[in-house]
Amino acid sequence: MQRTKVADLLRSKEIGKPFTVKGWVRTRRGNKHVNFVALNDGSGINNLQVVVDMEQFDEALVRRITTGAAISVDGELQESQGAGQNVELLAKSIEILGDSDPDKYPLQPKKHSLEFLREIAHLRFRTNTFGAITRVRHAMIFAVHEFFNKKGFYNIHTPIITASDAEGAGEMFQVTTLDIDNLPRTEEGEIDYSKDFFGKPTNLTVSGQLEGELAALAMSEIYTFGPTFRAENSNTTRHLSEFWMIEPEMAFYELTDNMDLAEEFLKYLIQYALDNCMDDLQFLSQRLQQEEKGKKDTEKSMELIEKLKFVLENDFIRLTYEEAINVLENSKPNKKGKFQYPVKGFGTDLQSEHERYLVEKHFKKPVILTDYPKEIKAFYMKLNDDNKTVRAMDVLFPQIGEIIGGSQREESYEKLTARMAEMNIPEEEMWWFLDTRRFGTVPHSGFGLGFERLMLFVTGMTNIRDVIPFPRAPKSAEF
Amino acid sequence: MQRTKVADLLRSKEIGKPFTVKGWVRTRRGNKHVNFVALNDGSGINNLQVVVDMEQFDEALVRRITTGAAISVDGELQESQGAGQNVELLAKSIEILGDSDPDKYPLQPKKHSLEFLREIAHLRFRTNTFGAITRVRHAMIFAVHEFFNKKGFYNIHTPIITASDAEGAGEMFQVTTLDIDNLPRTEEGEIDYSKDFFGKPTNLTVSGQLEGELAALAMSEIYTFGPTFRAENSNTTRHLSEFWMIEPEMAFYELTDNMDLAEEFLKYLIQYALDNCMDDLQFLSQRLQQEEKGKKDTEKSMELIEKLKFVLENDFIRLTYEEAINVLENSKPNKKGKFQYPVKGFGTDLQSEHERYLVEKHFKKPVILTDYPKEIKAFYMKLNDDNKTVRAMDVLFPQIGEIIGGSQREESYEKLTARMAEMNIPEEEMWWFLDTRRFGTVPHSGFGLGFERLMLFVTGMTNIRDVIPFPRAPKSAEF
Repeated sequence: MQRTKVADLLRSKEIGKPFTVKGWVRTRRGNKHVNFVALNDGSGINNLQVVVDMEQFDEALVRRITTGAAISVDGELQESQGAGQNVELLAKSIEILGDSDPDKYPLQPKKHSLEFLREIAHLRFRTNTFGAITRVRHAMIFAVHEFFNKKGFYNIHTPIITASDAEGAGEMFQVTTLDIDNLPRTEEGEIDYSKDFFGKPTNLTVSGQLEGELAALAMSEIYTFGPTFRAENSNTTRHLSEFWMIEPEMAFYELTDNMDLAEEFLKYLIQYALDNCMDDLQFLSQRLQQEEKGKKDTEKSMELIEKLKFVLENDFIRLTYEEAINVLENSKPNKKGKFQYPVKGFGTDLQSEHERYLVEKHFKKPVILTDYPKEIKAFYMKLNDDNKTVRAMDVLFPQIGEIIGGSQREESYEKLTARMAEMNIPEEEMWWFLDTRRFGTVPHSGFGLGFERLMLFVTGMTNIRDVIPFPRAPKSAEF
Repeated sequence: MQRTKVADLLRSKEIGKPFTVKGWVRTRRGNKHVNFVALNDGSGINNLQVVVDMEQFDEALVRRITTGAAISVDGELQESQGAGQNVELLAKSIEILGDSDPDKYPLQPKKHSLEFLREIAHLRFRTNTFGAITRVRHAMIFAVHEFFNKKGFYNIHTPIITASDAEGAGEMFQVTTLDIDNLPRTEEGEIDYSKDFFGKPTNLTVSGQLEGELAALAMSEIYTFGPTFRAENSNTTRHLSEFWMIEPEMAFYELTDNMDLAEEFLKYLIQYALDNCMDDLQFLSQRLQQEEKGKKDTEKSMELIEKLKFVLENDFIRLTYEEAINVLENSKPNKKGKFQYPVKGFGTDLQSEHERYLVEKHFKKPVILTDYPKEIKAFYMKLNDDNKTVRAMDVLFPQIGEIIGGSQREESYEKLTARMAEMNIPEEEMWWFLDTRRFGTVPHSGFGLGFERLMLFVTGMTNIRDVIPFPRAPKSAEF
């Protein structure tokens, strides 16, 4: 008989009908007369209760139905007497597909720490928490593509291996096929990169933006969604060495259009999660409340679903960096010296504590800051007429701080090359990027969303290593 | 006024209404009285004809409307007298957004070779051919996600940087942050990889399958869609160093279910292209016919759209490797010695010429071959009871040869470890993979589709470097 997924069966009204389910045993409990097996196949957070009449089954078989074992059950759907489910499956026959030695199986039917689960990331898909995260992650991936597809954007696969280092976004991973234990050398004793696979030094991309701009300046509206890499040696709950970024880039968009798109995009994703992942979000909300049980009320997060709705229901506050500096300078924590980094007027680089103060305490809404000092932003951002600020924008969220960073791009060849000269970025290496400003340049804008940052926000998880299947971090490349 | 996309305007019936369009000039032609500008903004293969009444405009402005320049036009939609379009835009005002010096702009209004366009990959999005490919590529990406989302599969981001080399799929790219010019050494003089970023040697992934299996053995049905890498030093029209792969992996699927899914998947993608990309496909079909003009009829490809429909309308032929060998041994080209690699019974590794003979000459349908000799397939494939073949499947297409490769996986811990021992694959490095066979193993299957192979098939292009925006190949990592 065709397999029915657990999630579908739990919604079924076909009482009395025969069904086949297959999945992994979460728990088995019971007595001499009847056993109850909680079965999960990944299709949802809720388990199916399989009822095993002990008179019908060999005891030796039932004993093999242990946590982690895989079974196939033919049975009859019946209304459930127990709390927490409408239906259950009365087993007619059971096949053990794969045993799981209870003395060796690492996932016991109890709460494991997230740290422990990271060490067995190959099995953590089988837990409630990581199952829920995996489903939400998929839903968010799909929603990203659906949002842009509906709007006529084209997904562009920008290169992963690149020879350019233009973004200057920090440390990079080198990619090579040279035998590094026995390097080819030039006559001058330098490493002979002409012998390397690509004939020159290459590294893993830190951003697809520059290539995205090339595409946008022909296709109008594009987005990337791919892995990006930072070789920063920092072990934090907010950083990964390998993470996924979404970078839309749009010709004919000025900064306001860019802000509008960013706000619409984030709201679309969050609405999609509420519409499609409510069971998982409810579970994750309870998980978070459980975790914060010991905390003082003032330290607790906003309830997860309430927090998501809060973003949907509020227009994002838009103000300039300069206005934000004024707010922060005159704020209580600044005056009382409570900020770790005091705010000292225009030019201060905002820290996470400042961003969160603006969002969580002052405005109590998501915030978009614009027009940052050019010194603290990248070379490709459009210079304002004041000659001191650039058309940058950062979207700040509660809990997360910066969730999106973007800007209108400098479309003037003269201004762009002048800025590159100031910042010692060699023109020769960027000839292809500059060509777009030489031939049919147009006003254009774009932004980047770190996908795992979004995942932290939507799931309420606090460590970024818990929202990606196989996290990469310093000294950590398991599986 | 809000910008309207060219593709939308070309479908519009609102004759006499005002519109604003923005885009890049493909050509301008005309006389003293009237000029016609062909404008494209990437939204479709067809240009908008902008009609410029020379009495209304400054000649100096019009002279700047050159190939490659970006302009914004306010105008009135009117029915077109010319052939090839229903509507055109009568310009009321024109703004030059970005000039394009006609003496320097590399893209002249003539046919450029694909080789030349690869050298200016940053600008080739602005050509008809690459614009069409970019739109089709996006459509295929979206269709992949839509197909799996509808079926309840979860997209899994498997790691790009990995420490495992289990697939043995060939040469790999090393990823490192060591200063390779000044390597840290152990006391024994070995490279001290404990000082490398991840504390051990790492490389770029060749496949997400093994991690995909981990997810499938909890979530039931998953798929990956990400970049994969091969450091093979071969410059061919069929290979890239960096390419995108789609790898679904399904618990509870046996080989027949796997074949059913592969066939349904390919047909879904092709149907989606026909439903959503007909303008671009028609253009690509004409392009191909143009390119093959000099060829003999027997050497010409099947017309593109006919070829796509041909796949849709036929059940794929399914036969075993052994049956295929019989067909090939008794085939005319084999008997007449026309194959470069003669077919010599069971064990022969099939070459592209054999695959294409089966598909194009013998069956005249897509073919799925199954049950290959274990010696020529990977260690993780399920061994048949004959102990000499494995439950592999290859889907063979006209023009492409192998477009999908997959198998039912070996779910037995004992058989898997025995096979690994035979093939000298160390168990210690694969403990996490083997754990899935120790705890709740189930029958499962999966396959891999090289996305650029699909793109070759759907677009009729013949060089794989022309169906990915920024191809990576030996000595080639530009942009």
